[in-house]
Amino acid sequence: MIKITFPDGNVREYKEGTTGLEIAKSISEGLARKVLAAKVNGEVWDLTRPIYTDATLNLLTWDDKDGKKTFWHSSAHLLAEAVESLYPGVKFWVGPALDSQAGFYYDIDMGDNKLTEEDLARLEKKMNELAKQNNSYVRKEMPKAEAVQYFTEKGDEYKLDLLSNLADGSITFYTQGGFTDLCRGPHIPSTGPIKAIKLTNIAGAYWKNDANNRQLTRVYGVTFPSQKELDEYNTLLEEAKKRDHRKLGKELGIFTMDDDVGPGLPLWMPNGTIIIEELEKLAKETEQRAGYKRVVTPHIAKESMYITSGHLPYYQDSMFPPMEMDGQKYFLKSMNCPHHHKIFGAEPRSYKDLPLRLAEYGTCYRYEQSGELFGLMRVRCLHMNDAHIYCTKEQFAQEFRAVNDMYQKYFKIFGIDRFVMRLSLHDPAKLGQKYINEPELWKETEDMVRQVLIESNIPYVEVPDEAAFYGPKIDVQIWSVIGREFTLATNQVDFAQGRRFKLEYTNKDNSSDTPLIIHRAPLGTHERFIGFLLEHYAGKFPLWLAPVQVKILPISDKFLPYANSVLESLKNADIRAEVDDRNEKIGKKIRDTELMKVPYMLVVGEKEMNENQVAIRRQGKGDLGSKGVEEFINEAKAEIRERRGE
Amino acid sequence: MIKITFPDGNVREYKEGTTGLEIAKSISEGLARKVLAAKVNGEVWDLTRPIYTDATLNLLTWDDKDGKKTFWHSSAHLLAEAVESLYPGVKFWVGPALDSQAGFYYDIDMGDNKLTEEDLARLEKKMNELAKQNNSYVRKEMPKAEAVQYFTEKGDEYKLDLLSNLADGSITFYTQGGFTDLCRGPHIPSTGPIKAIKLTNIAGAYWKNDANNRQLTRVYGVTFPSQKELDEYNTLLEEAKKRDHRKLGKELGIFTMDDDVGPGLPLWMPNGTIIIEELEKLAKETEQRAGYKRVVTPHIAKESMYITSGHLPYYQDSMFPPMEMDGQKYFLKSMNCPHHHKIFGAEPRSYKDLPLRLAEYGTCYRYEQSGELFGLMRVRCLHMNDAHIYCTKEQFAQEFRAVNDMYQKYFKIFGIDRFVMRLSLHDPAKLGQKYINEPELWKETEDMVRQVLIESNIPYVEVPDEAAFYGPKIDVQIWSVIGREFTLATNQVDFAQGRRFKLEYTNKDNSSDTPLIIHRAPLGTHERFIGFLLEHYAGKFPLWLAPVQVKILPISDKFLPYANSVLESLKNADIRAEVDDRNEKIGKKIRDTELMKVPYMLVVGEKEMNENQVAIRRQGKGDLGSKGVEEFINEAKAEIRERRGE
Repeated sequence: MIKITFPDGNVREYKEGTTGLEIAKSISEGLARKVLAAKVNGEVWDLTRPIYTDATLNLLTWDDKDGKKTFWHSSAHLLAEAVESLYPGVKFWVGPALDSQAGFYYDIDMGDNKLTEEDLARLEKKMNELAKQNNSYVRKEMPKAEAVQYFTEKGDEYKLDLLSNLADGSITFYTQGGFTDLCRGPHIPSTGPIKAIKLTNIAGAYWKNDANNRQLTRVYGVTFPSQKELDEYNTLLEEAKKRDHRKLGKELGIFTMDDDVGPGLPLWMPNGTIIIEELEKLAKETEQRAGYKRVVTPHIAKESMYITSGHLPYYQDSMFPPMEMDGQKYFLKSMNCPHHHKIFGAEPRSYKDLPLRLAEYGTCYRYEQSGELFGLMRVRCLHMNDAHIYCTKEQFAQEFRAVNDMYQKYFKIFGIDRFVMRLSLHDPAKLGQKYINEPELWKETEDMVRQVLIESNIPYVEVPDEAAFYGPKIDVQIWSVIGREFTLATNQVDFAQGRRFKLEYTNKDNSSDTPLIIHRAPLGTHERFIGFLLEHYAGKFPLWLAPVQVKILPISDKFLPYANSVLESLKNADIRAEVDDRNEKIGKKIRDTELMKVPYMLVVGEKEMNENQVAIRRQGKGDLGSKGVEEFINEAKAEIRERRGE
Repeated sequence: MIKITFPDGNVREYKEGTTGLEIAKSISEGLARKVLAAKVNGEVWDLTRPIYTDATLNLLTWDDKDGKKTFWHSSAHLLAEAVESLYPGVKFWVGPALDSQAGFYYDIDMGDNKLTEEDLARLEKKMNELAKQNNSYVRKEMPKAEAVQYFTEKGDEYKLDLLSNLADGSITFYTQGGFTDLCRGPHIPSTGPIKAIKLTNIAGAYWKNDANNRQLTRVYGVTFPSQKELDEYNTLLEEAKKRDHRKLGKELGIFTMDDDVGPGLPLWMPNGTIIIEELEKLAKETEQRAGYKRVVTPHIAKESMYITSGHLPYYQDSMFPPMEMDGQKYFLKSMNCPHHHKIFGAEPRSYKDLPLRLAEYGTCYRYEQSGELFGLMRVRCLHMNDAHIYCTKEQFAQEFRAVNDMYQKYFKIFGIDRFVMRLSLHDPAKLGQKYINEPELWKETEDMVRQVLIESNIPYVEVPDEAAFYGPKIDVQIWSVIGREFTLATNQVDFAQGRRFKLEYTNKDNSSDTPLIIHRAPLGTHERFIGFLLEHYAGKFPLWLAPVQVKILPISDKFLPYANSVLESLKNADIRAEVDDRNEKIGKKIRDTELMKVPYMLVVGEKEMNENQVAIRRQGKGDLGSKGVEEFINEAKAEIRERRGE
């Protein structure tokens, strides 16, 4: 018999060789129908794979991120099966589930065939047909040499390339219906549960993301366990399309991308920069009041720094490649923490200096697969609202609570009603590989964080095996007004880097201690947060954030001098205003200004000029009547100062 | 006969083979005594080298930068001669004149000998002895193969390494007295003019700046044509030492350097960051009023961007090495211009959009030889007060004048009384190599710039062969209060990049044109400007820039609550203030605050508490009497708002 430990701590005994599916059935038939994969000792497994030792077990359903990812990865195989049956002889590269969005893709060498958007319906139909056959995903092991021979005979250079990167030993294959793929899995048990299928897009993708290689055809899709979920997805997509931050970002002059700069590297246009500066102003004000000190650090450092920090090797895949200079390797920073630790360490510190809160809008660079890049949501250049708090163990709870309060203060300003904190814990099985090997400290800090979350009544969920390598992590999930979920910001507790960097402070009794470190970034990155705000507000920013706050619309050229005098008054009050001096009808001027989503329009004609007034229109609300110029300015200034939602 | 053209445009005829020295003598004996080298067709030559063709000639004296550099380079050879005569068998790497400071160095492999600070006096004595012999610097040519054989027999791996990077053909050597060196020159005619010698420092330096190589001994020195100049240099050095920005930067918590981050990459501490933010606030306010728009761009771009811009190949030596990713090369930006051009090009532009002024505090990275790095003055990471103005030819003069006015506005704020603009022109002989090959456009833009400088009555000098590769450059030289010269900022006219990037705007008649571009950075970089300000103010920043503006000193703990209430009032008025709550005598508190150069000290005791007053002391001025708290706050706020010098 083996002992199986469930997430709630319960332990039950099963026969050696029992599968996840059998265990699900032993609990309830309903669960067995819903379950998609099994997390065994922190690793996702096929439901049909036998378990031979004591283990922790988490049965994954559609509600789990890993459940969905398994479902989508299996759907990618289904797509490949459909493609192969319609276009025999094509070759396949890789077909992963997406990480940043719903769905999956498969990269295919179509040979002489060409796939266009028109072919997607036919492919969907074929996939539905194959799904209904409810073929099992069958796992098979094979010695590597045999696998190499198999693909050599088949002339499949892609799979041979994948094999060349695998260690010698046993290789796994998966077969469903007539399709077999080199794949480490896991998969759902069979194709039947894939009830609703939508292929969303076709794109070109260089083999291995390398522009020197040939281009493959990348087919994107998304699948669901029922038509209802696909319908909901479509509705949300429809609404999201109107609010698409890439579309709005272009229309409103927020940001642009450029091939010569590179993918995932947005350039912020003047209107986007105004929003950035308003957000920074808010954060700097808030942080100054909360006793933070600001620093500025370079974007690069030597390899030795990242060996000390543990980024090399724990985080190397997410870093940019090195620059070799003066016989040294230099890396672009992927996080600001090591630089801040150096500032902590630059002067002798005493307990009187703690908590020391060092803040920086630091720009970090992270390597993301080009297939994962998405507008402002997944980028390679990140402007972070970053800070590191160095404190004693005794100060931790209060500091951590203050950070959570700051998050909630921001949520209120931006009208974010729905949020949850996602507490990511380490996996004891991966100590020394994925996580720094300090079992005691992991337990202690995870307990401290949990304690504060419970005491502060903050909604949270626990997720195993997603911590940072140096400590537990709290991801903040928020929902936009249309109900889409975003991971906004993180908050991390770090017991490891202080010691790695030999950071110390002197106690009253002259003894030394290493500070605890809180990493926090309540506003996340400019990139993701402004992307979120574009969708959240549908581009209709509140007055304090709007790039152009007021547009003055003279009814005709005759009133241009008066319009310009109103402009002067607004500018003197630090209100961002423009005059529409085009020779156009007032109706057209109003329509164009509405399109640019400017909060206030001030129409000026004979009456307004004579009475030193302006006729006020509010974006989306229409006519608000006339007011004196000074009165309007005072009201607008108050609205800006208080950062009112509307 | 050959025709020699002098800088003033005069042309005189000389015999073929005449030397620069002979020409100097033909003008006056006084000039012949002062002249150090000759600039022939833009290239610095030995005075004794015969001229065989028509040429432009500039006779260089101690007053010319290139004259000084030749003098110092010859002094490096003199140093090597002295070292070799005292330590036979040592080997020499390179011995250049310094670019960023006065003087020179020589990198030496001392073998089993060890050189310490104590040995410098002995070396200076030997150098003086050798200088008095007035040995000629004799130039000799030799085929490369012969040179290789010579150094192979000598077993000199250093000079062999240098030779391996030289093209085949003729190699030049220089001999003075008993010392011969592989050297491309030029040199002064003989050692006699080196009348005053000071060896300043010994340091270790890795061979080729590569930490994997062995360490050589680097000896720094400086020399002068007379003792008087050395005395002046020593006096200035003495004063400058007290104001050394590296010393003050550490004492006042402005910046720090760290080995793991890398040389030339300062980390800005909280106090330095306050100064940075005040400077940025000043620039942003000034630029907003002047109609600039702000943008934010990434720190990297693909190789293709820098091929378009011409940075590759014209500027590659000053750039960091590439990062290879996804089959592409990415470079850290050494300038912001290409990114700004992309923003200009991201939308269709019309004449109505011009002038378009795009501003950014962009951080650039430039490769500097590690031997040239110096505190904040020569760094590899530059936070630039950058902007690019896109305008029509007709708008150019006005825009350029406005930029010059902005410079002068800043000079006034910072009490910079002495400045000169250094107009760097192209060298027609180097079109297509160092400069973009557009002779007509060079002439036109150089004339435009000269015209504005003359019309605006701005002091300026012209320097040939120091333009940017895309157009004429104006360097702004300023002098600190103790009379040291700094190159602060540059201002460049660019007729080339607009076309390279295919930037266009539509005219009224629908035809298209390429804008002219002005590159400008009146406050230069944070690094150099704050380094300058530290020396200029001797760390005693004016109130608006001071990291801590007011320190409140309670006479004893009894008055701590009152001190804290004053602190609250100051903080509410956005004044940066602290309380000295240590249990120390008031005299010690005052002395310590003076050391930190805090502008205002507010002493509070019984009398002040009872009358809601503060006893005011001003840094360096002592007691200013007592005032009510509100009165003090109002006066301090006015001083800050007006950015008063003191």
